[in-house]
Order: sequence, then structure tokens, then C-alpha cells
Amino acid sequence: MSVELVDSHYGKSRIRLLKVARFPDHHMIHDWTVDLSMRGDFDAAFVTGDNRHILPTDTMKNTVYALAHGHADEGMETFGRRLVHHFLDQHRQISQVQVAITGPVWEPIVTEGAAHPHAFCRGSGATRVAEVSGTPDSVTITSGIEGLAVTKTAGSSFEGFAKDRFSTLTDEMDRVLATEIHARWTFHEARVDYDACWEAARDALLERFANHKSASLQQTLHSLASAVLEACAPVADIRISMPNRHCVFVDLASFGIDNDNEIFMPTEAPYGLIEARLTRT
Amino acid sequence: MSVELVDSHYGKSRIRLLKVARFPDHHMIHDWTVDLSMRGDFDAAFVTGDNRHILPTDTMKNTVYALAHGHADEGMETFGRRLVHHFLDQHRQISQVQVAITGPVWEPIVTEGAAHPHAFCRGSGATRVAEVSGTPDSVTITSGIEGLAVTKTAGSSFEGFAKDRFSTLTDEMDRVLATEIHARWTFHEARVDYDACWEAARDALLERFANHKSASLQQTLHSLASAVLEACAPVADIRISMPNRHCVFVDLASFGIDNDNEIFMPTEAPYGLIEARLTRT
Amino acid sequence: MSVELVDSHYGKSRIRLLKVARFPDHHMIHDWTVDLSMRGDFDAAFVTGDNRHILPTDTMKNTVYALAHGHADEGMETFGRRLVHHFLDQHRQISQVQVAITGPVWEPIVTEGAAHPHAFCRGSGATRVAEVSGTPDSVTITSGIEGLAVTKTAGSSFEGFAKDRFSTLTDEMDRVLATEIHARWTFHEARVDYDACWEAARDALLERFANHKSASLQQTLHSLASAVLEACAPVADIRISMPNRHCVFVDLASFGIDNDNEIFMPTEAPYGLIEARLTRT
Amino acid sequence: MSVELVDSHYGKSRIRLLKVARFPDHHMIHDWTVDLSMRGDFDAAFVTGDNRHILPTDTMKNTVYALAHGHADEGMETFGRRLVHHFLDQHRQISQVQVAITGPVWEPIVTEGAAHPHAFCRGSGATRVAEVSGTPDSVTITSGIEGLAVTKTAGSSFEGFAKDRFSTLTDEMDRVLATEIHARWTFHEARVDYDACWEAARDALLERFANHKSASLQQTLHSLASAVLEACAPVADIRISMPNRHCVFVDLASFGIDNDNEIFMPTEAPYGLIEARLTRT
Repeated sequence: MSVELVDSHYGKSRIRLLKVARFPDHHMIHDWTVDLSMRGDFDAAFVTGDNRHILPTDTMKNTVYALAHGHADEGMETFGRRLVHHFLDQHRQISQVQVAITGPVWEPIVTEGAAHPHAFCRGSGATRVAEVSGTPDSVTITSGIEGLAVTKTAGSSFEGFAKDRFSTLTDEMDRVLATEIHARWTFHEARVDYDACWEAARDALLERFANHKSASLQQTLHSLASAVLEACAPVADIRISMPNRHCVFVDLASFGIDNDNEIFMPTEAPYGLIEARLTRT
Repeated sequence: MSVELVDSHYGKSRIRLLKVARFPDHHMIHDWTVDLSMRGDFDAAFVTGDNRHILPTDTMKNTVYALAHGHADEGMETFGRRLVHHFLDQHRQISQVQVAITGPVWEPIVTEGAAHPHAFCRGSGATRVAEVSGTPDSVTITSGIEGLAVTKTAGSSFEGFAKDRFSTLTDEMDRVLATEIHARWTFHEARVDYDACWEAARDALLERFANHKSASLQQTLHSLASAVLEACAPVADIRISMPNRHCVFVDLASFGIDNDNEIFMPTEAPYGLIEARLTRT
Repeated sequence: MSVELVDSHYGKSRIRLLKVARFPDHHMIHDWTVDLSMRGDFDAAFVTGDNRHILPTDTMKNTVYALAHGHADEGMETFGRRLVHHFLDQHRQISQVQVAITGPVWEPIVTEGAAHPHAFCRGSGATRVAEVSGTPDSVTITSGIEGLAVTKTAGSSFEGFAKDRFSTLTDEMDRVLATEIHARWTFHEARVDYDACWEAARDALLERFANHKSASLQQTLHSLASAVLEACAPVADIRISMPNRHCVFVDLASFGIDNDNEIFMPTEAPYGLIEARLTRT
Repeated sequence: MSVELVDSHYGKSRIRLLKVARFPDHHMIHDWTVDLSMRGDFDAAFVTGDNRHILPTDTMKNTVYALAHGHADEGMETFGRRLVHHFLDQHRQISQVQVAITGPVWEPIVTEGAAHPHAFCRGSGATRVAEVSGTPDSVTITSGIEGLAVTKTAGSSFEGFAKDRFSTLTDEMDRVLATEIHARWTFHEARVDYDACWEAARDALLERFANHKSASLQQTLHSLASAVLEACAPVADIRISMPNRHCVFVDLASFGIDNDNEIFMPTEAPYGLIEARLTRT
């Protein structure tokens, strides 16, 4: 029997990094988790145990800390790109580098109406993410948001859908819509203010979710993705994924109680899952 | 051989409840997880399988939804007390009822500078909790907060501590302090505005954390608990627990880099854990 | 306003420890997570920031590794007792030490019908636990098991229970019973073979669960706890906790299908939760 | 501005299904979590809110239960294929169906040396998985295993690797190797005994891990994937992923203790991650 190694990659996952930028009048923190993965001329290691081309993942971890120094206020996308170039430049056996960075959003604690200079609390549950993938020829940058939890209690219906012999769901004219927005977008420009773009995208997602009159989560998702493309000129393409966290109406009629759209049972599983990719044309 | 059943209780855990209060100009949501547990005259069920005194946990769940109806804007503590009285009144074999309620904080989405009337996003990661425990003779109410994540990048040191042959830690004069505040408090008054008290406690915790000059997490914790007692007159007693989420200084000297308090490695485990209880005297 | 510090303790949580015992013909591993907590004369640290009595949690962590060395084949309970004595002996300001140890069960990989000498796979999901708590006057040892997941598809009913206006559950004569066993026991003897006792307890729990004709999870739980007391003579007292992981019968009648006790929907939440403590008399 | 919907799919995730096969002398259980996702002619729903082509995910969930009935002993792969054909046959607007099924392994409880007929305990932490993806033209079946945790305390080294200015790792001649095996394989035959193949693959992974002399986790991973191809003739292609769960040697020299490869600190993060795909040639 003969086998062929058709693809391989390796790297270090979940490198934890906290950067403190100490400006004269305030501090800023970046609290990141970094994943690195490399492709290259590694077949001898996999097949025969020859490690000469293998840069240990421990060294990759050290590199993250070393390259972060002196750049405490640098954002995810720029740091990711710098890591990609470093590994490609330093090790000729590496042909592709993928960097994924995620992190919670920390906000200054507000005391006496003002942002405290060096104390922070975790903001909303949403997570900022970035992915940078590069070869000696090109680099691709992706930004995104994960876990932006939103719920609306009006302006959502689901009617007129297909039925078959296993259908039991009835038309819902005024339902609770609960979901978490996960979105990742790429750019058609090289020079982008990634922070401004991320904030504009998040604000567009929230505002559109609030104001969109939803005929389905499919339609809402399409509208949200469109809102990001409208709000962020540098964005070329967006992938978006949203679970339908069903809030089940609780029928209390058998207890002589008329539940007038007031009492619901949120459920974790199962959930609908809607995903799409939209591009600017 | 002979065995004795010295204690028993049973109930339903993780009942999910979403209440929508539909006011004329805006909606309000409560998104709760309810745990119920009962003690009482249940020995025959445990020992011989005689279920006549056993109120099924399925009925307990139904009761949560039925009693929630018509009280969509009621808070955790008041709903918990009503549940306690219901079970004690309806079932004479029940001698003690414990209710624990937890829920994330949802905030209105802000669009065009104003709170949207019926769209919400999840606020900070902190969770509000309440516990109500009652017998036919008395009821105890506890309020609390879980998972209030905070970090400060100045004003924290740890020096002058005890040493022994296994000590390796050196004095830290300017460290990063990262923790999550978990606190639960009880009251010495019967009529309390629980919502106002919770917000005052959370604000006191955040402000004190930001402004306290910390000689240790022990001292910070004591100061935070004191701040709640100072800020909330109805509070009699507070238990507080805080993990020390160590942010390890990364030594880059072997790479010729002077890490001037800029680059850290946050760690999940192990962590210090400090806990205390303070009372008003 | 005046506050009183009525209780405090601190320590290190989630210290990860792997011990490799290298016997001539085979190896043995212990893969533990250790939590330490201390009470003592620490008020000055909490109240005024005076750290002179504070043994850093970092030193506690170092101590775990240092004291583990040379005792790679020692069990949880004995190691916990040794840690307790060490801290009480070395630091007079410490008045109480609590040690909690948990760990998965690793089993030798079986190759060609025999246990491999130095390769291991994780056994069932169950976790072994031990707690040792001590003062200069006395030490208490607790052993236990967490997360022993079991299911039976016959021999379980639930009938004849109490009803009220919110009851909807009907008698179940032949239901699926799914649960996870969590149990902790203490001893009335000082010299115990803790390993043998743990295995006897686990085997007793499994065998009794399989063979017990269940009228309720309450009755099953009582019978399981009794089985441990019967099987393990050194055990004095047992606390046991079991969630009822409801497997809901799926009614397919509206599709013209008669579900003859074949198709169920397991649920994560809500779940019944039954707990008791039994002692030998 | 104009946007284009370039891809979309939707379905139901985390449908929980327990099937009980009641044979005369014993029972068998399948405890699965099913994810469904569909592509098709759904653009009108996404873009304009026209739901006429949308089969609700609630109906998809009902279909899983309805189609499972009467097939309690059917395996993941066969059930997945039946679901794919059902949706493609019943709804012409659906052009692709993806089914993913995962489930823990339940084993009969052994009492008095024999398998109990209707009581089960959860086996090792490993999870069995299958994916079936189909269009009107073709169906692809994938089997796999997730989370097979293994550790070896001899026969593993890592030496002779590449170095750069950020390298600090030294050669390791006798290290502890801890990992979890995740693997998925496809078939070059249509008629396969999927259960026999899964068990042969798992056994091959365990045996090879135990006996392989490892020069790196990369080499071990390649050898494990090869072992599956050798052991399972119907397998055409295998993807395999393994984290390096580093067990860090604890240096106790500063305490005057010589750690002779006995005491280690297992770490959760960061971890090396190695992935590859091998095909039969």
C-alpha cells in the first residue's frame, strides 16, 4: 500500500497576548488570542521525522511576543500582516502563513462621568476578529465580529412558507427574534482604517437589526450584510452567519391563562442556522 | 447494615424564561434562568418509591411560566419570593423552597442617539443573580453580580509578602491586575428597591476598582466589598470572590528586547482565588 | 459606617499536575488539577494591605510541584493530606488548609490483548475527586466521583405523584432514564485503601443503577448511595447528586406514525436535580 | 450601491435524537446530535422576504424524528444518506443537502462479568461523527472520530529542528506526548460496513500511537493517518488534526530537587496544532 501526503500545515494556537499602550494621559489595552499556522516544505518531517525544516511552534509563540513589543497600540490586522511577512522573510521553507486574532472589547470604566485613564471593564460579549493569510506573492486581510447577541420583540414575522407532511409550525405574525451575529469581511483596498471600519460595521449591524422589518431571519441576514457593505466603502465581500435562537411561545391556555405574547421559553438547541456571502458588484 | 437519609432535596434546574413587558412606548425584557429546589416530607419517595408527596419537577417548571404571566416587569427578587410563597402555600409537604435566578443584562440598541423601543443587545458580560430561600416562617433574599470582568494597568503592586524555600515570586511594584468580580449581598430591610441597589452596587464596584491603589488583590477585594456596603444602605452583608487572572510579564531580554511593562501573557490557569465576607457593624 | 471582615480565605486554583511513575515494566500517570485554599491570620492584608503574613499563591503552586516529586505513584487523598500538613507546619499564621484534587481516569491502551506499558487513553468521562481539609487539630478526607454518565432503557417508571392545577405530566410506566452520578463520601476509619474503595464505589454505583427497578430518580439515587455504603465498609457518609437528563418521548401520531417507545429527544435544560446525604447508622 | 448574494444555505443545527432499538435479548442506543443544512432556490427569501420556497427548519427537525422511526438500529452514515435523499426528493427547490451527525459512544454496563441488556455507561470521551452531503447527482459520505485523548510517557522526542533569533526550546530526547486525535475519512467504495470500519480505524489509531517511535507530532500524525489507510481497505482519503497538549517539564533545581522526568505541568493553551490530509495512491 502507498499513501500520499496531499496537504499539511502546523502552527501554534491560542497564544495569549496582552499589550498595554502607555500614553501620557491614558492607557489602552489589546487582549488577544493569536493562532498561527504555516504551510511549506515540511514533507520530510511528516514522512521521515527529519525536523530540519521545522520551526518549533514554541518559537512561533516567542515571535508573537517579541514582535508585539514596541507596537502596543497596533491593531489586529496590521500586526497580523507583520507576522506574516516576518515568517515568510525569515524562513524560506515557509510558503504560506495564516494568522487569526480574536479578542474581547475592553472599555474604560466611567467614573464621575469620564473615562478612567487606566481601568477597564469588558464591554459587550461581542468579539473582534481578524485573519491575515499570506504567501510571498499576496496577502489577504479579513476583519470580523463574533457573538454580537441581539433580540427584538416586535417587527418580526414568519409566514407563507413551504409545507409538507411533517410540517407543524404555524404562521407567526409577531414573534420574538433572538440571534447572534457573526460576520467576516474582506477589502478591495489596500489602505484601510480597520478600526473605523469595524466600528462602522458593528453600528450598521445593530441599527439595521433594530429597524429592519423582518419577514424571516434569512431576509434579516441579507439586509444586515447589505448594511455593512453600504456603511463601509472599503469592504468588498462579507460572509455572515446567524443562529435562530428560538424563543418558544408558552401556551398557558390549559391553566386558564391567556399568554398575550408575554411569556417565552428561550432554547439553546436545536437552532436554525442561516449563512450567506454577499459581494459588492 | 442500616443507612439513614439525613438530608434530601430536589427540584428543577435551568428553567429558561423570557418575559416581554410591552409598555406603550417601549418594551422591556427579562431573560432568566431559574433553578428551584425543595425540601420537605419526601422520605417515602426516596426510601420506598412512594411518589404521593412528590410534586414532579415538570410541574415546577410549568409553575414558573404560569406565575410569570401578568408580571412581565417584575424583578428577580420579587418573582423569587412569589414562587417561594406559592409552593409553600399549595403543598403542605414542602417545608423549604430555594429559588435561584440568573440572567444577562440586555440593553436597548442605541440608534440615532436614542434607545430603540424594542431592539436589544447584550450588555457587558456581567450577570445579575438573585436567590430567595424560604420556609413557612421566614424568607431570605440575596442579590448579586457574577463575572464583572475588570483590568487595570496602573495602581497595583504586590510587595513585602511572606517567603519560604519554595518562593520564586519577586516583588511587583507596577503590575497589571485583571479579575472578575463575583459578589452576593443580603439585606437588613424588608422593603428594598432591588434594581436601584444592584445598579448602585455595580457602579460602586467599578469605581472603587478603578480608583483603589492596590497593595494586593486581598486588599482590593476588601475595599470593593466595603464600597458596596457604603453605597447601598439596605445591604447588611456581602460575600465577594475574585480570581487573580495573572497577566505574566514576558521577559524578552534574551532577544535583546527591553519589555518596558508593555507585553504580558494572560493566563487562564492556575489563578489565585480570594474570597471574603463582610458585614455592616 | 463600619464594616467587619467575618471570614476570608485565599489560595491557588486549577494548578495542573502530571506525575509519571516509572516502574521497571510499566509507567503510571496521575493527571490532576489541584485547588488550594487557606484560612488564617490574614486580616491585616485584607484591611490595610500589610502583606507580611501572605504566602503568595505562586509559592503555593510551586509547593505542589515540589512536594509531588518523589511521590509519583501517590494517590489524591494521601498527597492532599501531605500538602495540608506541610502548609500548617511551615506557616504558623495558617490555621486551616483545604485541598481539592480532580482528575480524569487514564487507562493503558490495549494492544494485542495486553496493556501497553507507557501509552494511555482517556477512559470514561467520569472524574475522580478528593478533598482534604485540615487544621492543626484534625484532618477530614473526602473521596468522590463526578460525571459518571449512565442511561437505562427499561426498568424505570414514574407514577402516582402529586398533582396540582399546573400539572401536565402523565404517568410514565416505561421511560428512558438518563443521568450523571456525582457522589462524595467520607470515612470513619483512618487507614483506608482509597483506590480500592473508589473502584468498589464506582462498580457498586454502576451495578445498582443497572439492576435497580426505578420508581423515581429519587428512589434510584437513594438506592445508589446505599449501594456504596454496602460495598465500601470504610465509608461513613455519602452525598449524592443526580440530574434527570430528560429524554422526551416524541409524539409522531400527527404524521401517522406510532412511536412505540423508540424515538426520544434528549434535553440539556431544564433538568430535574435530586440530591441527598446518607449516613451509616 | 448594488450587492450580489453569491452563496447562501440554511438549516437546523443540534437536533438531539435518541433511538432505542429493542431487540429480544438486549437493547441498543444511538444518542446523536444532527445538523442539517440546505442549498437551493432561496434567493427570493433572502432578498425580498418571499418565503414560498423556504422549508422551515422546524419541519427539518420533525423530519429527523419521523424518518428515524422504524430504523432504531441504523447507523449514522445510512441515516444521513436517507435524510439527504428525502429532502432532495420531496422539495425540488433544494439542490444540496448536508447532514452532520455526532454522538458519544455508549457501552453496556458490565455486571457480574456480562454486558447488561438495557443499562449503559458512557465510554471513552471520543465522539463518533459522520457527514453526508448530496445533490441529485451524487452523495459523499465521511466518517470520523473526534477527541480521542491519548498520552505516552516514553518513545517521544523532538530534536534537530530549525532555529532563529527567537528560539528558546532545547532538544527534547524523552518527552511526554499528549494529544487528542481528530480524524475524518472518505471511501472509494459504495458498500461499506461503516461500523466495522470505524472500530478498525479507532483501534489502528490507538495501537499505532502506542507503538510508534515519535520524532515529532508531525511524524506521529502522518503515521496514524497511514495506519487507518492500512487497516481500512474501503478508506480512500483521511484528514487528521492533533493538538500538541504540551506537558511542560517543571524545573525544581532551585529548590534542590532533581526532577528526573517525573513532574510535569500540562497546559491548555497555547498548543501546537498539526493537520494533514493523506490519500491512498
